[in-house]
Amino acid sequence: MARPDGRTPNQLRPVTITRNWLRHAEGSALIEFGDTRVLCAASVEDGVPRWRRGTGEGWVTAEYAMLPRSTDTRGARESVKGKIGGRTHEISRLVGRSLRAVVDFKAMGEHTITLDCDVLQADGGTRTAAITGAYVALADAMKYLRKRRNLKNNPLTGSVAAVSVGIIQGQPRLDLNYLEDSVAQTDMNVVAMGDGRFVEVQGTAEGAPFDRADLDTLLDLALAGCAELTDLQKKALAG
Amino acid sequence: MARPDGRTPNQLRPVTITRNWLRHAEGSALIEFGDTRVLCAASVEDGVPRWRRGTGEGWVTAEYAMLPRSTDTRGARESVKGKIGGRTHEISRLVGRSLRAVVDFKAMGEHTITLDCDVLQADGGTRTAAITGAYVALADAMKYLRKRRNLKNNPLTGSVAAVSVGIIQGQPRLDLNYLEDSVAQTDMNVVAMGDGRFVEVQGTAEGAPFDRADLDTLLDLALAGCAELTDLQKKALAG
Amino acid sequence: MARPDGRTPNQLRPVTITRNWLRHAEGSALIEFGDTRVLCAASVEDGVPRWRRGTGEGWVTAEYAMLPRSTDTRGARESVKGKIGGRTHEISRLVGRSLRAVVDFKAMGEHTITLDCDVLQADGGTRTAAITGAYVALADAMKYLRKRRNLKNNPLTGSVAAVSVGIIQGQPRLDLNYLEDSVAQTDMNVVAMGDGRFVEVQGTAEGAPFDRADLDTLLDLALAGCAELTDLQKKALAG
Amino acid sequence: MARPDGRTPNQLRPVTITRNWLRHAEGSALIEFGDTRVLCAASVEDGVPRWRRGTGEGWVTAEYAMLPRSTDTRGARESVKGKIGGRTHEISRLVGRSLRAVVDFKAMGEHTITLDCDVLQADGGTRTAAITGAYVALADAMKYLRKRRNLKNNPLTGSVAAVSVGIIQGQPRLDLNYLEDSVAQTDMNVVAMGDGRFVEVQGTAEGAPFDRADLDTLLDLALAGCAELTDLQKKALAG
Amino acid sequence: MARPDGRTPNQLRPVTITRNWLRHAEGSALIEFGDTRVLCAASVEDGVPRWRRGTGEGWVTAEYAMLPRSTDTRGARESVKGKIGGRTHEISRLVGRSLRAVVDFKAMGEHTITLDCDVLQADGGTRTAAITGAYVALADAMKYLRKRRNLKNNPLTGSVAAVSVGIIQGQPRLDLNYLEDSVAQTDMNVVAMGDGRFVEVQGTAEGAPFDRADLDTLLDLALAGCAELTDLQKKALAG
Amino acid sequence: MARPDGRTPNQLRPVTITRNWLRHAEGSALIEFGDTRVLCAASVEDGVPRWRRGTGEGWVTAEYAMLPRSTDTRGARESVKGKIGGRTHEISRLVGRSLRAVVDFKAMGEHTITLDCDVLQADGGTRTAAITGAYVALADAMKYLRKRRNLKNNPLTGSVAAVSVGIIQGQPRLDLNYLEDSVAQTDMNVVAMGDGRFVEVQGTAEGAPFDRADLDTLLDLALAGCAELTDLQKKALAG
Repeated sequence: MARPDGRTPNQLRPVTITRNWLRHAEGSALIEFGDTRVLCAASVEDGVPRWRRGTGEGWVTAEYAMLPRSTDTRGARESVKGKIGGRTHEISRLVGRSLRAVVDFKAMGEHTITLDCDVLQADGGTRTAAITGAYVALADAMKYLRKRRNLKNNPLTGSVAAVSVGIIQGQPRLDLNYLEDSVAQTDMNVVAMGDGRFVEVQGTAEGAPFDRADLDTLLDLALAGCAELTDLQKKALAG
Repeated sequence: MARPDGRTPNQLRPVTITRNWLRHAEGSALIEFGDTRVLCAASVEDGVPRWRRGTGEGWVTAEYAMLPRSTDTRGARESVKGKIGGRTHEISRLVGRSLRAVVDFKAMGEHTITLDCDVLQADGGTRTAAITGAYVALADAMKYLRKRRNLKNNPLTGSVAAVSVGIIQGQPRLDLNYLEDSVAQTDMNVVAMGDGRFVEVQGTAEGAPFDRADLDTLLDLALAGCAELTDLQKKALAG
Repeated sequence: MARPDGRTPNQLRPVTITRNWLRHAEGSALIEFGDTRVLCAASVEDGVPRWRRGTGEGWVTAEYAMLPRSTDTRGARESVKGKIGGRTHEISRLVGRSLRAVVDFKAMGEHTITLDCDVLQADGGTRTAAITGAYVALADAMKYLRKRRNLKNNPLTGSVAAVSVGIIQGQPRLDLNYLEDSVAQTDMNVVAMGDGRFVEVQGTAEGAPFDRADLDTLLDLALAGCAELTDLQKKALAG
Repeated sequence: MARPDGRTPNQLRPVTITRNWLRHAEGSALIEFGDTRVLCAASVEDGVPRWRRGTGEGWVTAEYAMLPRSTDTRGARESVKGKIGGRTHEISRLVGRSLRAVVDFKAMGEHTITLDCDVLQADGGTRTAAITGAYVALADAMKYLRKRRNLKNNPLTGSVAAVSVGIIQGQPRLDLNYLEDSVAQTDMNVVAMGDGRFVEVQGTAEGAPFDRADLDTLLDLALAGCAELTDLQKKALAG
Repeated sequence: MARPDGRTPNQLRPVTITRNWLRHAEGSALIEFGDTRVLCAASVEDGVPRWRRGTGEGWVTAEYAMLPRSTDTRGARESVKGKIGGRTHEISRLVGRSLRAVVDFKAMGEHTITLDCDVLQADGGTRTAAITGAYVALADAMKYLRKRRNLKNNPLTGSVAAVSVGIIQGQPRLDLNYLEDSVAQTDMNVVAMGDGRFVEVQGTAEGAPFDRADLDTLLDLALAGCAELTDLQKKALAG
Repeated sequence: MARPDGRTPNQLRPVTITRNWLRHAEGSALIEFGDTRVLCAASVEDGVPRWRRGTGEGWVTAEYAMLPRSTDTRGARESVKGKIGGRTHEISRLVGRSLRAVVDFKAMGEHTITLDCDVLQADGGTRTAAITGAYVALADAMKYLRKRRNLKNNPLTGSVAAVSVGIIQGQPRLDLNYLEDSVAQTDMNVVAMGDGRFVEVQGTAEGAPFDRADLDTLLDLALAGCAELTDLQKKALAG
């Protein structure tokens, strides 16, 4: 049972990370997982949200969105509808939480970094591409912040990457594209640190419940994928 | 290291399920996990959302919300703010997805069941209580639907329950209350069917990343908790 | 012409007031007028709205809302619709105004009490039950405030209760349930203090205009009902 | 104790009704109660709201609003704020309900008349001026509808007018202007038919509760005022 | 080819400016271009928007809106829809920009003037009537401000007026009414100072593109119209 | 007085048009005017808006938006604010109007094409880049539509391009970048067809009013710029 694009079950799509795609942002990356393209921008601002003022600690947050025609059929703009949908909210929160896992807020001081992840083209795995690309943008923004504000310690405590895995007709696969994602029985997104520990595990039975053995196989597959992505992030940041 | 309410690490809080708490709803339950109280109502309506019309299949959806003073300090009403927050969206989606895992939409016919889960009092675990209570309301609503519309087959394919687990100061614990939840390093919500298979696994590193061994311990704890809740659901529905 | 539930024309439905139904709120009551159930919570906060700052006076406000399945057929959530309907606004304003009639704002100091009245189940008279229950919650919140902030004078200047009256097929009746309310020619809500003076009188010709004699009969009926409710409030607060 | 504009306690302000102030509307009136100016427009449309379709009955509804600088200090536009305030909602509902009291919906057929009451300048009593002026606009719109659609019976079953009354420093007064309204202990709006029966009575204790004798005095005053307004409506419509 | 109301191609409709139509506003004018009637109110407030604080400079802004039945068929209220349409936004911005062209913000000091332009009746040219009338209201508000705040220099640096021009069946015409506007091939709004220089030129090919010669003819026509309107403004302000 | 990027006054920035940048859209182009980058996508849908149904005519509309970090300092997302700003509305309308000028709606049949113009990076002239790029996307979408729906006639009646011009310290310049735009006394956007006729002329006195001679110079400059852009569009579409 071949994959639609001929990959082996444990193979990532071609991944490219174009660092500093934007001129204004303090950090940015255009990340591609096959046909999925997400533009990640990190913006540094002085100050923190009201509820955090006076703590001496910084804040990192994220906003995820899709362009109307990033998808196969055009979707209505959330700005035109006047409200943000549940899926958008959920992914924005996931991206923010994932990136905060590698931040030392004390070291940051009272600064805020906002990670804007805008999907220019969607073909499955947009949230995992967003997390993986946002890390690159965040790393550059932290470098900028550290230099400009003379921070003593590095506010980054590690790296973070994410990938999707799923079971299609009984076969566990890495990095699903849209076609695969839409027919998966089980779908899991895993966010892991560079050292292989988990930051977030979200497994959902789309078609049929999954057992412990399925779960274990999927986690193995995902950790291997995250390790590859970690290498690609390092190369991009070394470039 | 004792738990704040004296429980053992693998002990649920006292759980009570008051079936048919509401007069109008086709199914309802007031569920309590200790001081957490969630009112679950299932409403049966003819017809399905536009995108599902003509398929012959039904639909199940959920809306979760908290009363303003269910919490320790009063929260602003989302109706007054004019928009629904990300957390509310995220939990509503989780509850709906979890319940849909045990529904045969073909057997339902073109009917919609909406599960309203309103938190009257919150002390941690509101989303897992909501799922567990919503199943009881759903079971009664399906019974009503089956009888009123002469459905040939049972649209329910199993039962579903949910519980939270977490690691506090290195100790894995079942069914966290608010105090425990707010200091957990890792926090996981597990939704399982009555037969022990997973419907949803959501693990988040709040304070520190977690490794494979942590994950395994938490999953064991959660499955045992879900099994107990499944028994309590059966008793409530037998009553 | 008997009433649907067998009451005499000047008889209230069974009324129960469960004080302190909530753990977190500074005052709370679950009030039932027959099948109508309203959860009233009073929240004390330091400070007052911007337009009142620096006056040395406190503020009392109310928010009324119905759970989606409190009614016979499910109503859409106002938070999901993104706006509050006219009826909700109107009743929230009425409840707030009614309670403010028994408050000495100078004695309160610059504190705000918000009364949340959430209808868990509706069978007519929800706004009058809300006012009657909110008074009990307010009394406890004022007691809390007085003690915590060492207030010299009692900020409560009296008690307040409310009831509906109406004319059905020519017969004046006290405390209409939903069935009666929906066929009433004239419908009136009366809010009165414990000493029998009026705080608010709202009479509406639903089906046919009413004359002065009708009005007089309805006011007599309402004042008698409010006197009974005042007694029940006293008992609840003495408990 | 003289009134600020020298009127006797039972005297209306100068009232002028300019019929057909607008060119496009099927009925319209610019009504002035002293410095209060409300532009009332009646728009006839075929069809009725969804919930009324197929009943053969018409519908009448109203929308009330204030221009930003109708008042002493500029108020923010509700369209700019993105939501309608409680007071606006409440008055729109009152105006609609009051006008519906004199309409035979069967005789109207499935048509809708919308009454737009826009306050151009405010000096107290805007809601009562709106009701009184809207009746004139409605009468012309009904005439138009009857002729254009060949209605057999007159859809208007009577006339309706409204006035405010209140107690200022113990003195009952008719038709309060803004200055008086802002210091009234008790404030009442009365809507009456041309034959003197009540359509709506809304009395509110702003400063102090009121007793039965106060209520009776205010009702007498209001009915006399409404009778005068009924005459002025007749004159305007005869013009 | 005669114009629908018998005017010559370069003739304005009858224009009347009723200064001080409102009692509360610091400046106001009811302006009529034929059947188009716009009520313009200027409100003076201390302080400026946040982004301008501390600059010592004032601010002038405008809000344009149409009453629901100003038009031939009733339009939904933007406050009820909960959002402002693109056309409203566009015209509000145009009016504000046009008036700011004749203001010396330094001379104003940190004060804000808001120009509310509400269309009571629409028959084409509402935006140009709004600008022309708003200037009269602004002039009075500036006079008020200068006196009350003892401003040394006149914050007004000139006058501003506006008119529409268009090509209908090949014929260039001044000040289009609605009938003409709806069939114009080219439609242009010109805002000019009293000295004949341009503040804004907005030409749109509604039906067919226009060439340089068309443009020149329309500009001549518009400048002549603006000169006439400037005279009428002077007369109104001298009155 | 040199331009910040060394161009001559009548020189465009380097313009690149990458056709078919997106995989899903029926037509698309990434257009760059120097550092300004706009992604233009054309989406073909069957059917037309309600008000146009049954006319046999098609419709073309546009939505313009900026990514939050396209600009020098991050702007809040309009979807998060819950409403679209005036500038966004105004530009969306301009883009739609400009493209409709070259469409034969009868020839299109009842289909709708939506042009999404999303600014990925902003450095002045985003609206003119959007129009110029949207034409390329539209041309491809029309080709697709013509083929798929077997349209007899070409729905495109010409080409359209746009450019900004302005006066900086007395010097007229073509295609302003952000730095120039922010200090221009006069700012004009010109939309022209391939044959040199005007579709839209929008001139605004930002700092000082402009006279007829200024206007003439700016129009000459703009028409020359549009002619160059027309050539670039042709080359892109020939590619």
